[in-house]
Amino acid sequence: MTVVTNEITFQSKGNGDVIDITSQVARIVEESGVNNGIVNLFVVGSTAGITTVEYEPNLLSDFKNMWDRVIPQHIPYEHNKTWGDGNGHSHVRASMLGASLTIPFVNKRLTLGTWQQIVFVDFDNRPRSRKIAIQILA
Amino acid sequence: MTVVTNEITFQSKGNGDVIDITSQVARIVEESGVNNGIVNLFVVGSTAGITTVEYEPNLLSDFKNMWDRVIPQHIPYEHNKTWGDGNGHSHVRASMLGASLTIPFVNKRLTLGTWQQIVFVDFDNRPRSRKIAIQILA
Amino acid sequence: MTVVTNEITFQSKGNGDVIDITSQVARIVEESGVNNGIVNLFVVGSTAGITTVEYEPNLLSDFKNMWDRVIPQHIPYEHNKTWGDGNGHSHVRASMLGASLTIPFVNKRLTLGTWQQIVFVDFDNRPRSRKIAIQILA
Repeated sequence: MTVVTNEITFQSKGNGDVIDITSQVARIVEESGVNNGIVNLFVVGSTAGITTVEYEPNLLSDFKNMWDRVIPQHIPYEHNKTWGDGNGHSHVRASMLGASLTIPFVNKRLTLGTWQQIVFVDFDNRPRSRKIAIQILA
Repeated sequence: MTVVTNEITFQSKGNGDVIDITSQVARIVEESGVNNGIVNLFVVGSTAGITTVEYEPNLLSDFKNMWDRVIPQHIPYEHNKTWGDGNGHSHVRASMLGASLTIPFVNKRLTLGTWQQIVFVDFDNRPRSRKIAIQILA
Repeated sequence: MTVVTNEITFQSKGNGDVIDITSQVARIVEESGVNNGIVNLFVVGSTAGITTVEYEPNLLSDFKNMWDRVIPQHIPYEHNKTWGDGNGHSHVRASMLGASLTIPFVNKRLTLGTWQQIVFVDFDNRPRSRKIAIQILA
């Protein structure tokens, strides 16, 4: 049994900022000394999510536009009455996208496609210090 | 190698009912006797999903309103011709949200944010007995 | 500690093709020789996703219609200027649905509901050879 606990911390700009964390996750997997297993990534916080995407500027625009269409920022949110943070849309988007992603690795390599990157998506309406909890199991 | 199998069962009201299961999951993790690992939560059934959210009444309204806007109940669904259950929207919402959530824990503590709860979302159109399958690995 | 690495490969038609992979995953779990654990499924590629659904033809139509409504194919996508593939909508849908699914199994049986199947959803706009990376842990 092997459990290797780690985390990634970084600054995010918020407002739909999409951050490519692939190389950091790949390094953590390589340095774990484990050959085959899974890496479980979990977004700590309720206004951001995690997924995979082809990290290409035009596509990132499309992804952002999709959120603006499907879960708009500028419609009434009850949550904005609770704390006055104006980030009701951020929470709803984050819950929709999801906070966890789990990926197999084989011979120390993540089983990602060639044009598939792991991304953290910050939906909050301001810059934030962010953390992703990481557990490697094998 | 440690695998601890468990489950949570409860009654849900359906119709978008959002149930906070954080304390139950936290207790199962603590009582597993394992210090560091992951907990894999899986919704048994095809009309409910799982995610994380700040469990705050106004935000729960916003979350429910989002589903009513994005995947409305009262539009035609072919599935409603199959069984006559009228829950076509419930299935589509559940498949969109997702049935699995996997979370690291460290020193017996889930790596959740301060305002981040684990929630079961019942999209069915009637009260149901529900089950979440749980596997702890370390 | 047990890690069993596997994969599923198949041909997909693309264009929202929903492929039931439940029996293949169940067989891989049974043949792993492991009684209790988790199976982590990961979509290799950035234009497809994975979820669970009641695999019933009418519902599959509803699911496809939902994607056409929520993330339409025939609106402008910046990504379509990058490669000229015309699959901007495919990428955005895939990132929204998610690439990973993790399911507990107990006594060699997946903890699925009676009417709950594991499905691969191909959003690309052409037939593709596809792969799902699989890691069983126990």
